[in-house]
Amino acid sequence: MTVLILTCEEDVTADMVVVHLDATGVPVVRLDPADLTDGVALSGEYVHGRFRGHLSAGGRLVGISGLRSIWVRRPGTPAARAAAPSEWLTEESGQALYGMLRGSDARWMNHPDAARRARHKPWQLRLAQRCSLPVPATIVTTFPQAAREFAERYPDLVVKPVSGAHPQDPPRAVPTSRVAPDADFAAVAFGPTLLQRRVAKRADIRLTVVGETMLAARKAAGPDDEVDVRFARSASSWQPVDVPPRVATAVGEYLRAAELAYGAFDFAEDGDGTWWFLECNQSGQFGFIEVETGQPIARSIAAWLARPGPEDRSSANGAGSAVN
Amino acid sequence: MTVLILTCEEDVTADMVVVHLDATGVPVVRLDPADLTDGVALSGEYVHGRFRGHLSAGGRLVGISGLRSIWVRRPGTPAARAAAPSEWLTEESGQALYGMLRGSDARWMNHPDAARRARHKPWQLRLAQRCSLPVPATIVTTFPQAAREFAERYPDLVVKPVSGAHPQDPPRAVPTSRVAPDADFAAVAFGPTLLQRRVAKRADIRLTVVGETMLAARKAAGPDDEVDVRFARSASSWQPVDVPPRVATAVGEYLRAAELAYGAFDFAEDGDGTWWFLECNQSGQFGFIEVETGQPIARSIAAWLARPGPEDRSSANGAGSAVN
Repeated sequence: MTVLILTCEEDVTADMVVVHLDATGVPVVRLDPADLTDGVALSGEYVHGRFRGHLSAGGRLVGISGLRSIWVRRPGTPAARAAAPSEWLTEESGQALYGMLRGSDARWMNHPDAARRARHKPWQLRLAQRCSLPVPATIVTTFPQAAREFAERYPDLVVKPVSGAHPQDPPRAVPTSRVAPDADFAAVAFGPTLLQRRVAKRADIRLTVVGETMLAARKAAGPDDEVDVRFARSASSWQPVDVPPRVATAVGEYLRAAELAYGAFDFAEDGDGTWWFLECNQSGQFGFIEVETGQPIARSIAAWLARPGPEDRSSANGAGSAVN
Repeated sequence: MTVLILTCEEDVTADMVVVHLDATGVPVVRLDPADLTDGVALSGEYVHGRFRGHLSAGGRLVGISGLRSIWVRRPGTPAARAAAPSEWLTEESGQALYGMLRGSDARWMNHPDAARRARHKPWQLRLAQRCSLPVPATIVTTFPQAAREFAERYPDLVVKPVSGAHPQDPPRAVPTSRVAPDADFAAVAFGPTLLQRRVAKRADIRLTVVGETMLAARKAAGPDDEVDVRFARSASSWQPVDVPPRVATAVGEYLRAAELAYGAFDFAEDGDGTWWFLECNQSGQFGFIEVETGQPIARSIAAWLARPGPEDRSSANGAGSAVN
């Protein structure tokens, strides 16, 4: 049974995982959907109630029923590097590739549907609440008056995008910023705005979850005005830290409900030691954490991907139950 | 409890359903996400572990917890008609609107994730096989040699797109065509190609399923060379027809597995009366069938949407179980 990795060529994080997979002797096929149909080929037959499918990449052929797991890392746009690329070819190639893979019994990290849903910040906040994770008071609104009233109740606010990265080319992360006390909220009417009570934090927490393995890292906060750790120059570094049992239970519940096998949680730790949920990125980077902390994230991913596939397993085991 | 309909203004099919809903006195809010943030507004607060959200459209305000069902008909691109439209505003507006709605307990027809998955033709074919529906022998391939061998086994073939409509503006349906006996399959290498054994049909079948209601219509086939009913000028018309019990069981299983509350199935009926599965369109049009056959499709949709909402129901009932 083979591990299939969908990612671009220049993905050094995937390289880290492949090293571990190679060490265990598990067969790996790595391909970029962008290389359809030049370098990557596919074929699937539906005859007499049965399906037989194959993928070919780099001269290697693998049967779709022979896949034990599929890692959706950083796949390119289907057929983007074809000799004559077009929207139509991309659509046809994407439907053919993912349509066949969706019919396989392999475990996904992460399934495309779960990944897509997990990107919705308002949905994340609601799910975190339902799993009893502390969520800072938040409003998403196009009503200036609602924003004003919220700012009266919670005078110390940050503003951040609802969706994440700005879709320019290349995409640009939009930093979380503090809201000035005299802010004018009239412009809220022109676009949904996310305002959140600022957590007076003493540390940032990154909790990386791979299946049932939880690896948390902590970074002491810098000066008081530093809000978004991604844009901060901090003297402190990421250090491994234990996951409080209550958080571990809630996070496990979150990932099961979200049907995610991998998630990178960001928390803000306040003066009382409470971890406040900020977000869960289903495709969050982990290389920088692994390098600073020495935590075995890549090895954990390799171990998850290398687990016995559907044909090897005695009892059926779907993607959802894999995070139990 | 309110029914929310997401569709564009000029949707006469939605009008047909709204007439029935109005007759039953169930409150309806209809909005087009394209009208965010000019005409449509939203607001949601996450405070003390609770969520309170509202939508406003056409001067009407509705609470998100007060939604009994959501009908995703023909919604426009979020914020497409805003004063200053942009990719960024579309992304933010879509995440805000669908992110909040995804956290609601309302029943969906159809849920966006289920709808997205259901568009994959290779996945459809595999699911149909698994539900014991007869599927004509099919290949999806980029290997010219595989196409050639398939054509030797099944000399009477049609070719159709993997994905459906060509993404030009406006989108254009690509007709299913017969493959000439001397076809050269070399071009298969440049794009995934779907070849299917042609069913010698004596009729087209359209089976529209709304929840557990199944309404089938039959149209006698025209001359022998007519393949794609959408492009045919036929003298015959659509007539109501009974659903064979075996098909009803299989189709029910299909929709439950697909987590769809609505599906429009296309079958080809052969000389033996067997219904061959061609596809299931989760957003298939039904107005033309209703007009020709008098089948109460719009009324069935209205009845499904009008069912008691999560607050009215005694036992919790997710979107998946709604098609039982």
